[in-house]
Amino acid sequence: MSGLPSVTGSSTKSINILLINPNGTLSMTEACLRSLEATLPPHCTVTGFTAPHPTPSAIEGHLDGIFSAAAAARAVIPIASDYDAFLVACFSAHPLINALREELSGPVIGIMEAALYSARILGGRLGIVATGARSKIMHEDAIRYYGLDGFSVGCETTGLGVLELERLPRDKVLGLVGEAARRLVQDKGADCIALGCAGMTEMKVRCEETVGAKEATAQVIDGVGVGVQLLIGLVREGHLTAKGGVYRSSQDGRKARGQDWV
Amino acid sequence: MSGLPSVTGSSTKSINILLINPNGTLSMTEACLRSLEATLPPHCTVTGFTAPHPTPSAIEGHLDGIFSAAAAARAVIPIASDYDAFLVACFSAHPLINALREELSGPVIGIMEAALYSARILGGRLGIVATGARSKIMHEDAIRYYGLDGFSVGCETTGLGVLELERLPRDKVLGLVGEAARRLVQDKGADCIALGCAGMTEMKVRCEETVGAKEATAQVIDGVGVGVQLLIGLVREGHLTAKGGVYRSSQDGRKARGQDWV
Amino acid sequence: MSGLPSVTGSSTKSINILLINPNGTLSMTEACLRSLEATLPPHCTVTGFTAPHPTPSAIEGHLDGIFSAAAAARAVIPIASDYDAFLVACFSAHPLINALREELSGPVIGIMEAALYSARILGGRLGIVATGARSKIMHEDAIRYYGLDGFSVGCETTGLGVLELERLPRDKVLGLVGEAARRLVQDKGADCIALGCAGMTEMKVRCEETVGAKEATAQVIDGVGVGVQLLIGLVREGHLTAKGGVYRSSQDGRKARGQDWV
Amino acid sequence: MSGLPSVTGSSTKSINILLINPNGTLSMTEACLRSLEATLPPHCTVTGFTAPHPTPSAIEGHLDGIFSAAAAARAVIPIASDYDAFLVACFSAHPLINALREELSGPVIGIMEAALYSARILGGRLGIVATGARSKIMHEDAIRYYGLDGFSVGCETTGLGVLELERLPRDKVLGLVGEAARRLVQDKGADCIALGCAGMTEMKVRCEETVGAKEATAQVIDGVGVGVQLLIGLVREGHLTAKGGVYRSSQDGRKARGQDWV
Amino acid sequence: MSGLPSVTGSSTKSINILLINPNGTLSMTEACLRSLEATLPPHCTVTGFTAPHPTPSAIEGHLDGIFSAAAAARAVIPIASDYDAFLVACFSAHPLINALREELSGPVIGIMEAALYSARILGGRLGIVATGARSKIMHEDAIRYYGLDGFSVGCETTGLGVLELERLPRDKVLGLVGEAARRLVQDKGADCIALGCAGMTEMKVRCEETVGAKEATAQVIDGVGVGVQLLIGLVREGHLTAKGGVYRSSQDGRKARGQDWV
Amino acid sequence: MSGLPSVTGSSTKSINILLINPNGTLSMTEACLRSLEATLPPHCTVTGFTAPHPTPSAIEGHLDGIFSAAAAARAVIPIASDYDAFLVACFSAHPLINALREELSGPVIGIMEAALYSARILGGRLGIVATGARSKIMHEDAIRYYGLDGFSVGCETTGLGVLELERLPRDKVLGLVGEAARRLVQDKGADCIALGCAGMTEMKVRCEETVGAKEATAQVIDGVGVGVQLLIGLVREGHLTAKGGVYRSSQDGRKARGQDWV
Repeated sequence: MSGLPSVTGSSTKSINILLINPNGTLSMTEACLRSLEATLPPHCTVTGFTAPHPTPSAIEGHLDGIFSAAAAARAVIPIASDYDAFLVACFSAHPLINALREELSGPVIGIMEAALYSARILGGRLGIVATGARSKIMHEDAIRYYGLDGFSVGCETTGLGVLELERLPRDKVLGLVGEAARRLVQDKGADCIALGCAGMTEMKVRCEETVGAKEATAQVIDGVGVGVQLLIGLVREGHLTAKGGVYRSSQDGRKARGQDWV
Repeated sequence: MSGLPSVTGSSTKSINILLINPNGTLSMTEACLRSLEATLPPHCTVTGFTAPHPTPSAIEGHLDGIFSAAAAARAVIPIASDYDAFLVACFSAHPLINALREELSGPVIGIMEAALYSARILGGRLGIVATGARSKIMHEDAIRYYGLDGFSVGCETTGLGVLELERLPRDKVLGLVGEAARRLVQDKGADCIALGCAGMTEMKVRCEETVGAKEATAQVIDGVGVGVQLLIGLVREGHLTAKGGVYRSSQDGRKARGQDWV
Repeated sequence: MSGLPSVTGSSTKSINILLINPNGTLSMTEACLRSLEATLPPHCTVTGFTAPHPTPSAIEGHLDGIFSAAAAARAVIPIASDYDAFLVACFSAHPLINALREELSGPVIGIMEAALYSARILGGRLGIVATGARSKIMHEDAIRYYGLDGFSVGCETTGLGVLELERLPRDKVLGLVGEAARRLVQDKGADCIALGCAGMTEMKVRCEETVGAKEATAQVIDGVGVGVQLLIGLVREGHLTAKGGVYRSSQDGRKARGQDWV
Repeated sequence: MSGLPSVTGSSTKSINILLINPNGTLSMTEACLRSLEATLPPHCTVTGFTAPHPTPSAIEGHLDGIFSAAAAARAVIPIASDYDAFLVACFSAHPLINALREELSGPVIGIMEAALYSARILGGRLGIVATGARSKIMHEDAIRYYGLDGFSVGCETTGLGVLELERLPRDKVLGLVGEAARRLVQDKGADCIALGCAGMTEMKVRCEETVGAKEATAQVIDGVGVGVQLLIGLVREGHLTAKGGVYRSSQDGRKARGQDWV
Repeated sequence: MSGLPSVTGSSTKSINILLINPNGTLSMTEACLRSLEATLPPHCTVTGFTAPHPTPSAIEGHLDGIFSAAAAARAVIPIASDYDAFLVACFSAHPLINALREELSGPVIGIMEAALYSARILGGRLGIVATGARSKIMHEDAIRYYGLDGFSVGCETTGLGVLELERLPRDKVLGLVGEAARRLVQDKGADCIALGCAGMTEMKVRCEETVGAKEATAQVIDGVGVGVQLLIGLVREGHLTAKGGVYRSSQDGRKARGQDWV
Repeated sequence: MSGLPSVTGSSTKSINILLINPNGTLSMTEACLRSLEATLPPHCTVTGFTAPHPTPSAIEGHLDGIFSAAAAARAVIPIASDYDAFLVACFSAHPLINALREELSGPVIGIMEAALYSARILGGRLGIVATGARSKIMHEDAIRYYGLDGFSVGCETTGLGVLELERLPRDKVLGLVGEAARRLVQDKGADCIALGCAGMTEMKVRCEETVGAKEATAQVIDGVGVGVQLLIGLVREGHLTAKGGVYRSSQDGRKARGQDWV
């Protein structure tokens, strides 16, 4: 509209995001990176980090969570100064997220959080396509912990394990994911669907066909995509993780106790 | 780190955001735009829209809220097709936000929501610098409505009216805002401070000095800045407002009732 | 029982209530008034106000909400001094309610609030007969905002639009409303049913037959009826809206800014 | 305003309310009745019932609560058919309230509930003048149970016991109550004050002077007054307690077990 | 494992628990005691107290609750000094619990509370086998009051009254209880099942067979058993009920008012 | 009281509890064991396990949490079959707790949970003596996660680090802990005090003197003591961790993926 004042950006600030896959499966990390190619803006680089031995190759529960968090944290902290922000690519309130917030300077987010906040902006009710009955309960607990249970219709599950998502025939998996999404929208009233696993990244397009994302009936949210974009935004605004409160590093404590090696 | 796979962006997609100041004060709209200049990326344009007559020139309460919402909505809807996303630049759960979500295609966010989600990512406890005692209660009610009261330490107020922020001597205002922020951090334990008014945009730098943003003790969050960035991110990911749920347009209903003129 | 002390009233204080229908459909206002005839006590007059152009003729969503709120507020404020209290006859957390609380002296209530508090007194679980899927979500959000979600079994919908309630054959509408009420009671465990629309006022009797109100199995609550009675009660006790907190008028602010015309 | 449709009431339905003072102190019952004289409408009679031996003469805690509830229930149930509705005049979530809802036909309310709902209508933040530190915690627990803790600023206490309210020099008591109310309004931001005891009924006027009720700065709510009015309203609308849910009488069970004498 | 330090207990402290059945049915008290025989440790004695006339012989609702609370409290308080702790054997937030906490020195717990805390330790989602539709709502209200609704999947009911549990053919009752437990586990996702009635104590073993307690699929929790054990533990640690807060006795108040006889 | 039926225990079932100190400081483990000596019943043995290298020697934040959880889990799982239940002796919602619930058969509890449930039984308001400002926020978040924030008055801090509790002069530390406890009781209204650190175990007696535990004004709760007792109780009742829900082991998944070595 003519006459309105406007400002056009010119910041060519280089932004480096570290995408951390805590589960040790390189192919999943690579799939995440591929999914970002089309939408990533110039001057922004996302590097894919796969947690090393002895991390589990899939994260199905709390034990996998702490093993992967410890393995990933030990390996990420030494290289973190090369990056401006950090995405934890596991769809959960993964314990690595808060641990990295303590030790790293740049913003840190998990893909579940990113999906939750995006769903709050884009719609009125969030549903999650979960991989199994156990993750369903973990997701519900995490949503309540984030304070957003009032806006959630819960989870529907594909019945698949994390790795089955890669091993089963593509069409079968896509069909089950689509069917779970359809139930969330038609039976439970969700208008935003979050894909409950980083391994689901490439299914976004197919899943959108089922729930009518084209006509904007529902939005299918991939936490990897929106997570990277949220971090880019926070970095552009100059934000770091606040270190004066709950995310104060305990590095001084460890030094005082002679535990720099931790 | 050598050896890690990475992807660098090249999307030069042009993105147009409409910043909607519902309060009719052009100078405030212009101040918002100026504050965005340094951090806006290329190919992104933010256009500043100031709600027309008969909108109030400041929004102090609920009545101002509905008058400004109606005035802004009537003027924005006809020009909305030129824009990809919409920022409502009033620090509140302004009724315009959900109304626009119903009628417009692109994502819509308010600067309060944007600040809240950013604070959840960057720290553990949010505090808001409010302009007056009344807005303090409105902010607390809104935070509870968003489900995030468990992470909030509440508000501290400068004691100023919305327009006094522009009229009083700059130094006095900056001092009062800084003092309120300091109380939130030191007395109440906040590590993230949100500026509770769009008119506070340019105070961010000065305020950061008070609470130690440089050393990342606390983050000072300007909802205008992070709001624009969140919208850019959602647009890059191809998201629209979901229209199958609570944000379904009632345009068909109005047509059926012969009320296209609304 | 003989011997117990008692007091019998004699207050012939004249009480004037303004019933505000924000949706511009006069027939609905008149239906509301008719429904009050049998139960209104002496010295109490309820005047029906229908919001003028450019209000929508039905309120289906948030945009209709702000347009109707602005239109109604502008027209009501100048005539408000003739009335002791104000009922907003739209079953929602309509933005007009809080706006009027700021500007008017007497108590203000919406018919949804009135129904909610009545249901809390009369039973253990409230269910709402909603007109459509969208209003279902808006109702649930409002109930949570009022803090009463723990006592609600949710909504059942007739599948009808607001105006269809008047246009469809009476018997068909009554049947659908009754069926929704029956599901709330028998399947979801509600013992109080709120009619989720001011246009449902006259259906109360028929609906009560379905859910056994005669035997007091469940109570069917019409927010218009109980809303007027609650206001009469508060006026008798001499109450006004409290103006020292969140409902402080912003009239002084508007005057200082030269906006008396708002 | 000329031209608006209106309806004026003519219902001379006779309404009988039983005010139940569970604490056995007749003078308190009588004080409650006196406080109602000025505001009670014609055709409405409030009868004052004082719970008989072995009820305690004041209710300070949970044990007093169950003793008074049992004594009052046994005596009230046989005479209940003479009354249309029942007010439990103890400022708490007194166990008698739900017990009477099971056995009696008419609506039942406690004076705390009545004050809470009235405060939600009249203002944004409720504060309670409590008699002692223990009742402060009981009140806070009750408010959370009713779902309204988000709208409460808590309690301030006079430091007096229930009976001291009657025994101490009137001026001293009024001063302490007024001071507690003032702290709630000025220090904690309440705009509605509830008197946390039925024995405070007559202090309403004096207390209003302190917090500026005349200028409507804050409203002082007496649960006895608004409780009677709410009941009158529900009775006028033909409401009974819903008996198909949690308030189903267990009389049949007692009969089947040969316990009609209970 | 060799080398780890350890401590083995030798405390032969004698512990006396009073199990209070508020409902007057001696056979139920005796059944509770029998169920404890196998698991009670040495030096621990549980004495079974059955509330005397005029307590109801079953507790189906709120009125039964206050009658049984008053009858039990009057009889228990005089003999309480012989016991170290007190279990209220009614599956509800029975008003007797808090009343006894005021007057008695030792810890007091209800079997519902005991089951809730145990379920939080042993699993992720609790389900309750309720006796009827009314108790279902009372249980849900109580769970929310305890703050644990986020971890509950709700209730399934056998459709039986409290006394039918004893009167119907054993096999039929066991079958219905088992079927309700199965629905909680398989349809609603519970992994802990609480038996919603003290009269269900002896059904624990049979019920466990249905839900796979042997393979630890789900745990069936009997509030009587865990309640006694929790009390033993608190007594061993030297704990009493805290008397400086909400559980301060009002005995002094009664004395001052000449009501020692209460 | 003569005539009441009773049952006296004789179960000499041997119970072995593993107390897991995740922080690697043997002296703290030993202090915990010593504190149990006086109250542990016969046939019950508590073995103290200190997490091995590379666990941190103190747990101050989230990073310490995941490192200690991973180190402790790897070492505990192989030896777990010798024990009936497991106490995680770190006052937090330590990630080790849920991880062990997945992999181990017996019940698992953290000392914070144990203290919370005990406080709910023994009093009305819990306060926590926290070691520092950071742990204060972590404690508040954990309490909200457990659903018990409505019963908490928050934390008061000694200002000491975890290890300072052992290094500073005993009297100084005891004085600071006592002072924090006193503030919680007198200023904030707590009647139960939890010691917010396993290292505080031996301070219980001294701290009790300050807040009047002798007169039962307030109870000072040591999570180590009550945690062991709760576990003993659950083991006596034959309980295991439920494995059909959120605590299903992911061992099968790891095997399928060739990761038995995790």
